[in-house]
Amino acid sequence: MAKQERAARTRSQLIAAAADDFSRSGFVRTNLTAISRRARVSTGALYFHFERKEDLAAAVVHEAVDGIRSAVARVHRAPACALQRLIDASHVIAQLLRTDSVVKAGVLLNQEGHGPLPDLRREWHAHIDRLLAEAARENALAPGLSRQSAVDFITASTVGFEALGRDDASWLSRPALASFWALHLPTLATGRILDELQTAGTDD
Amino acid sequence: MAKQERAARTRSQLIAAAADDFSRSGFVRTNLTAISRRARVSTGALYFHFERKEDLAAAVVHEAVDGIRSAVARVHRAPACALQRLIDASHVIAQLLRTDSVVKAGVLLNQEGHGPLPDLRREWHAHIDRLLAEAARENALAPGLSRQSAVDFITASTVGFEALGRDDASWLSRPALASFWALHLPTLATGRILDELQTAGTDD
Repeated sequence: MAKQERAARTRSQLIAAAADDFSRSGFVRTNLTAISRRARVSTGALYFHFERKEDLAAAVVHEAVDGIRSAVARVHRAPACALQRLIDASHVIAQLLRTDSVVKAGVLLNQEGHGPLPDLRREWHAHIDRLLAEAARENALAPGLSRQSAVDFITASTVGFEALGRDDASWLSRPALASFWALHLPTLATGRILDELQTAGTDD
Repeated sequence: MAKQERAARTRSQLIAAAADDFSRSGFVRTNLTAISRRARVSTGALYFHFERKEDLAAAVVHEAVDGIRSAVARVHRAPACALQRLIDASHVIAQLLRTDSVVKAGVLLNQEGHGPLPDLRREWHAHIDRLLAEAARENALAPGLSRQSAVDFITASTVGFEALGRDDASWLSRPALASFWALHLPTLATGRILDELQTAGTDD
């Protein structure tokens, strides 16, 4: 294995181990020695990649943000209508939060002010706003719907699912989100497309 | 002023000052000396009331939980229908989070695992569940509504408003919550009582 490749592998082992420790013990109680042990990497190698705990937290956040953004972008490129892409994006993010420990830890660290500080909730709000604008152009929104209220409410609900899902992952399950969409699509979407929308997502 | 009264006043000054510092700087960066200065209380008096920072955090959480519970109980005793009491409770909690620095700090400290650990979100979920059961007995729910989905979604949305409101209090404003209820009551409530429900609350 080339030297560069080995270094990249070590780095990603360290990030995975750090994500586990940050999720389990929080930033303050996590220490670098434990991370190097968990990653089966010497402390020398750890310090070669990350001088301070804050640098490791930054790397976890960076990976998490990248992971979420690229998953959402993938959904966004799919040939579905705007509302379906919104539903699919919510499922994809929930799945990452449920199954990817780096994403889970990174989102929490980001909210606690560690690492790079993209405002993920603001990005998500803006993404929902764009998708509902697109849905309006597709004549897919229910007549008389206040788009602003709808954007705000979808943002708040999904942020709430994320917050509740930290302690109880069932909030982030596919059926939980599907029920949410089933309950609200009649308020959001015009009757014409209601039957076509898949509340459980089309992302897998 | 009697000695006991003076002690109670000092204690509540310390709790208020601690709430400000915890909100501003987080638990880790807050120190007791700064709190005693802000409260204009000697460090001796501070240590008389609170030996450790953790004790002060516990007192802030305790006051916050008391404040929320008693406000919700007050709404619950009002002679309104169950759905109106749910709307009113959401406004009352949002107002406390917006205007009462002890409540705001206490909710955050509670979520970070400091102080007594009542699961406020679970309490709120159970409260919504009870109110929707009562609304069902009043024949106030929309026909065919999945009550479980409704309870979960109202919990998630309101938890989301709280989370978003930490950085931007406009999420907790009366108009923001009123728009939320205006958007969803047609899904939740039967047509008969829709006109009677006040989306902006009847709590003031």
